[in-house]
Amino acid sequence: MNIDVEKLRVAERYRLLIGCVVPRPIAFVTTVSPQGAPNLAPFSFFNAVGSDPMTMLFCPGNRIDGSEKDTLRNAKPEAEGGTGEFVVNVATEELARQVAGAAEELEYGESELELVGLTTAASQVVAPPRVAESPVAFECVTEQVIRTGGDAPLAGNVVLGRVVQVYVRDDLIDERLRTNPERLAAIGRMGGAGYVTTRDRFEMPRGRAALDAEDPFGRG
Amino acid sequence: MNIDVEKLRVAERYRLLIGCVVPRPIAFVTTVSPQGAPNLAPFSFFNAVGSDPMTMLFCPGNRIDGSEKDTLRNAKPEAEGGTGEFVVNVATEELARQVAGAAEELEYGESELELVGLTTAASQVVAPPRVAESPVAFECVTEQVIRTGGDAPLAGNVVLGRVVQVYVRDDLIDERLRTNPERLAAIGRMGGAGYVTTRDRFEMPRGRAALDAEDPFGRG
Repeated sequence: MNIDVEKLRVAERYRLLIGCVVPRPIAFVTTVSPQGAPNLAPFSFFNAVGSDPMTMLFCPGNRIDGSEKDTLRNAKPEAEGGTGEFVVNVATEELARQVAGAAEELEYGESELELVGLTTAASQVVAPPRVAESPVAFECVTEQVIRTGGDAPLAGNVVLGRVVQVYVRDDLIDERLRTNPERLAAIGRMGGAGYVTTRDRFEMPRGRAALDAEDPFGRG
Repeated sequence: MNIDVEKLRVAERYRLLIGCVVPRPIAFVTTVSPQGAPNLAPFSFFNAVGSDPMTMLFCPGNRIDGSEKDTLRNAKPEAEGGTGEFVVNVATEELARQVAGAAEELEYGESELELVGLTTAASQVVAPPRVAESPVAFECVTEQVIRTGGDAPLAGNVVLGRVVQVYVRDDLIDERLRTNPERLAAIGRMGGAGYVTTRDRFEMPRGRAALDAEDPFGRG
């Protein structure tokens, strides 16, 4: 089936994106408002960008009425009315219900942390706290926000952040900073209401060596 | 453990990113050079951005020597020496070895498609072909390339593309454009040489309802 994107409704485009761009990692983002009120929300249009400098991004879409989500308002650079900081906490199996629960839209300034029953720990460098129950947190300083879609009500936003400090629970990494995926037990997003665990893993060598490797699914 | 990013080597930052930002979706990207030579490479710093307009991004890091990867050179806007187009093919279980194999660095102009033994089908709108064996392909027009890291040799790049056309194998979606994740059988990236399937899924309602849902892992 060949689909001309111009002929699709926005909701259909969204459904195609979330159903086909999978599995998506989840940024469980903490911010504070300029007045100091904490906010927590999950974003699965999220990924790493690069290591030099250490950079990640997430993409908070605007609401149906064209307004910006609280996380975006808070994470924007100070010159644009925000605080210029955010913390990406990693979403794990243990936090699955709280991650889904924090997607609830509360009034600006009301805390999803309280709603979902999570607690915070002070960050080392930035003002927004990390989620105490999350085993990994990346403290980020906003580099820039790129708006895609101009004046479209559902315009997208790309928030680029430089990672300045990382918290990792001690039992999760070794001295070379390699992560134990079994202990991390991260979860990811699929289409619709779907999530995925990271339990069903396999390894593949990189480059030519992969072509001589056994098919990890035994298809020969 | 609290880690000051400034004190890390670039390779350590990379290891932290790929070990903790998981599971990552894989863009299996086809491009053509201005001379018409096809290229294929996998990128897991990749995600959707938004639906209005339908936008995705991927982040090809530069090589150790500071040079740009072939995919980036080809996907750049024409004014910057590229063709301004790319196709994101979805990586599946069936293509696991070819995805890993196409990470092999060949000379500019040499085709990874031939190396890994995949074939192409013509795209509807853009010049780069799609991977015929991939069940989903997003034809994209490059909107802009944002460089992170300035003159750092390992600078990152964010390639933002507007999706203009989508190919989906008929058996994968219903009339409302919802994807069947079982049939899609997408794979994602973990840390090191790790990959993950999307077989171990669960569902969660969104917002407050999630807090009353049963723990999907039976922890009560």
